[in-house]
Amino acid sequence: MSFWSFLFLTCMVVRHVSGVARSCKQLKDEMQMESSGIYMLSTEHGMEYQTYCDMVTDGGGWTLVASVHENFMLGRCTVGDRWTTQQGNSRNTKGGDLNWINYRSFGTAQGATSDDFKSPAYYDIIAENMQVWHVPNLAESPTWSETAILKYHTANNFLTNHGGNLFNLFTTHTLTQGETLSQTDTAQTCTVAHGPSYQIVYQEGSREMNNASVRAFYGPWADEEYHPGWIQFRPVNNEGAAMAMCSGVRACGCNVEHFCIGGGGYFPEATKQCGDFSSMDNDGYGVGKKWSATREFIEAAVILFVR
Amino acid sequence: MSFWSFLFLTCMVVRHVSGVARSCKQLKDEMQMESSGIYMLSTEHGMEYQTYCDMVTDGGGWTLVASVHENFMLGRCTVGDRWTTQQGNSRNTKGGDLNWINYRSFGTAQGATSDDFKSPAYYDIIAENMQVWHVPNLAESPTWSETAILKYHTANNFLTNHGGNLFNLFTTHTLTQGETLSQTDTAQTCTVAHGPSYQIVYQEGSREMNNASVRAFYGPWADEEYHPGWIQFRPVNNEGAAMAMCSGVRACGCNVEHFCIGGGGYFPEATKQCGDFSSMDNDGYGVGKKWSATREFIEAAVILFVR
Amino acid sequence: MSFWSFLFLTCMVVRHVSGVARSCKQLKDEMQMESSGIYMLSTEHGMEYQTYCDMVTDGGGWTLVASVHENFMLGRCTVGDRWTTQQGNSRNTKGGDLNWINYRSFGTAQGATSDDFKSPAYYDIIAENMQVWHVPNLAESPTWSETAILKYHTANNFLTNHGGNLFNLFTTHTLTQGETLSQTDTAQTCTVAHGPSYQIVYQEGSREMNNASVRAFYGPWADEEYHPGWIQFRPVNNEGAAMAMCSGVRACGCNVEHFCIGGGGYFPEATKQCGDFSSMDNDGYGVGKKWSATREFIEAAVILFVR
Repeated sequence: MSFWSFLFLTCMVVRHVSGVARSCKQLKDEMQMESSGIYMLSTEHGMEYQTYCDMVTDGGGWTLVASVHENFMLGRCTVGDRWTTQQGNSRNTKGGDLNWINYRSFGTAQGATSDDFKSPAYYDIIAENMQVWHVPNLAESPTWSETAILKYHTANNFLTNHGGNLFNLFTTHTLTQGETLSQTDTAQTCTVAHGPSYQIVYQEGSREMNNASVRAFYGPWADEEYHPGWIQFRPVNNEGAAMAMCSGVRACGCNVEHFCIGGGGYFPEATKQCGDFSSMDNDGYGVGKKWSATREFIEAAVILFVR
Repeated sequence: MSFWSFLFLTCMVVRHVSGVARSCKQLKDEMQMESSGIYMLSTEHGMEYQTYCDMVTDGGGWTLVASVHENFMLGRCTVGDRWTTQQGNSRNTKGGDLNWINYRSFGTAQGATSDDFKSPAYYDIIAENMQVWHVPNLAESPTWSETAILKYHTANNFLTNHGGNLFNLFTTHTLTQGETLSQTDTAQTCTVAHGPSYQIVYQEGSREMNNASVRAFYGPWADEEYHPGWIQFRPVNNEGAAMAMCSGVRACGCNVEHFCIGGGGYFPEATKQCGDFSSMDNDGYGVGKKWSATREFIEAAVILFVR
Repeated sequence: MSFWSFLFLTCMVVRHVSGVARSCKQLKDEMQMESSGIYMLSTEHGMEYQTYCDMVTDGGGWTLVASVHENFMLGRCTVGDRWTTQQGNSRNTKGGDLNWINYRSFGTAQGATSDDFKSPAYYDIIAENMQVWHVPNLAESPTWSETAILKYHTANNFLTNHGGNLFNLFTTHTLTQGETLSQTDTAQTCTVAHGPSYQIVYQEGSREMNNASVRAFYGPWADEEYHPGWIQFRPVNNEGAAMAMCSGVRACGCNVEHFCIGGGGYFPEATKQCGDFSSMDNDGYGVGKKWSATREFIEAAVILFVR
């Protein structure tokens, strides 16, 4: 074996034995990494990739797994709506682009407030809790924590009951429910069909973050449709369309398209519904009136961490 | 020169002299890597990337270069149909998105059963043979070999006569033939226009893999249209549309849209033809009747290796 | 701390202290890298990525930041028109896909003549000058300099007045001007609305590169519309559509859609205008007559460097 082969093999061994961690939690706990920022991680199957680690909040060790970013509010399941479908709203798109339940990845950590981001961490890391930040579009990673308009996490280890990540959660709680429901009396069944929800812990930020501030983001007509202080998965609307998650709230009504995001690729009542941010502009873009969310809320990326 | 500069330069030298191999074959032969999995490779021009190496089958050293994955069977050359065209079926799209003959890359090795994948290895490696596996969608890389529903390779070094890879093969055997043929008596000329085909060696798997099992995947009406036991490139259909390859079979007829994949961006008889998996659902999705392939076959990614 | 942890930490320190440079200029000046090729760089925030460095021209140190590549001339702001919009030409797409002013990245350096490329370098590096090469599609990186049909750079440090990169330049000189102008007497105002322009220095190549050769690329009817020997940003057309840049020329007229590239997502006079290469095929594809540019010009990627 040549000298260079020896050096190479040594490097390989270093990388594979201790070199690349599988999560930010591991980097924090086992390697004493204390600074938030972009790190190299490796999947269980040896694929290396970069993502952002929040090493500060509540003890740190949070791995950025995804960003849901609205690239074009008026595009209804067109190019860029990766968290619903890019094939247009249609009964034929069933579960949509399926990115909640597959091994694709796209985007970059540094671009997470400019575009959708799905890290291999999304499906690779087995975790216990989620952290969600709503960060204004184009904010750069060192300012995310400080500029976020909403920040919270769970503390009840709920992911443990769902296979440890959203990939497994949505594999069980499918986003294709809509089609089935739409053929029944959905007004009666949608609340029954809503997926699991969990209480959240608001974090400290550069502004108030509490139930009242969450309410302020969504349109006033939606007030009776949810309870703040929760995160909910797979909510279902009046027509049976399955969405991916409601951030900061738990749905008690069925007009979930006005305050939940992501989902399958079929909204039976098509008008202004299909899309990563669905119908948050129902009564005008960013006006914060009737069913419409505020502009501040629409123009912030929803970035998801696990730990 | 500082200590750190010295260390850095040493690292650079290590990487460039011996550090990153150009193919899985080199990793196997020269560096004694014995485990299948994801490795870092480097192109001739120094771009590093990760792909999957099969280090086991027939002596190993197979580099994963691409995956042809049907993201949405009903989408006819829409977003995601990268191996034909994403611009819609049209005389204007001639050769389609041209990904068979350019230096783009997309997707990831780990996502090869969730999405199209095109590695820089596709155009960079000069090889002799191909290996093709049909792997069920969402199977994870460590299970590919075991879960594959069809596995074979060539043993005749045919790539040597085509520039060593598919990039060069398709540069010669263009996928735009369709337009020309469509203006002549194509029923007479399509078989003449079919590109080169080569005999394959079936591999051992968790089930039978032979001519009969290949036949079982495609619709019964296609039975007289092909001979199993081959791989064929640039088959042409009745209307002169050029497709990229027929996996496991050699076309003797011209209704190739029912059992071949990929291609240029123009299918003159448009109905249900344009798309990465073309018209495999002609008589119903996954029914395995008339011209339709089985569901098992449609819902498996075709992953391509070279050695 | 284990031996492996020690090795890992040492590696991390090496990488972070001296390991990865932020620009090709730094690689050239501080680490004496003399060969053009693909290198690993790191952003200010620690994201590593690969791009091409030209280490030769005018002293070298040029970092490839982007490629504007026309994937489908007849596609009018469809998939692949990332430098305008992929949502179709519409008043609703305002600034288009916004890639001139966000932190997305796409494509690869090695694929820069096969596809659009946007490196993190585009927004990360603070530079003084630009270099632009027009390189025939599918040329491989080692041949770019020699095969380019047009090569030039600026020497006046103009980027210093625009925040050091195109991200900052276009944040100030927005590409959404069009809508405003289109409601006024734009024929009078478009020349006033044109953004900044700077003189260029032609480089030596395998052919003549001067004002006459630039004129030869664009259609003869555009002759009175520009002065060669410049690079211009944010030109505006008769209907008020804002484009991104005119390569090699400064607009004095307003029919800029025939010789400028990129832009916002709205061309009020829609016919044959929206698209990364806009209306360079107005009077026939590649005919070099009337308003049409030559085929040679259309089928070359515009690759952008900074230093």
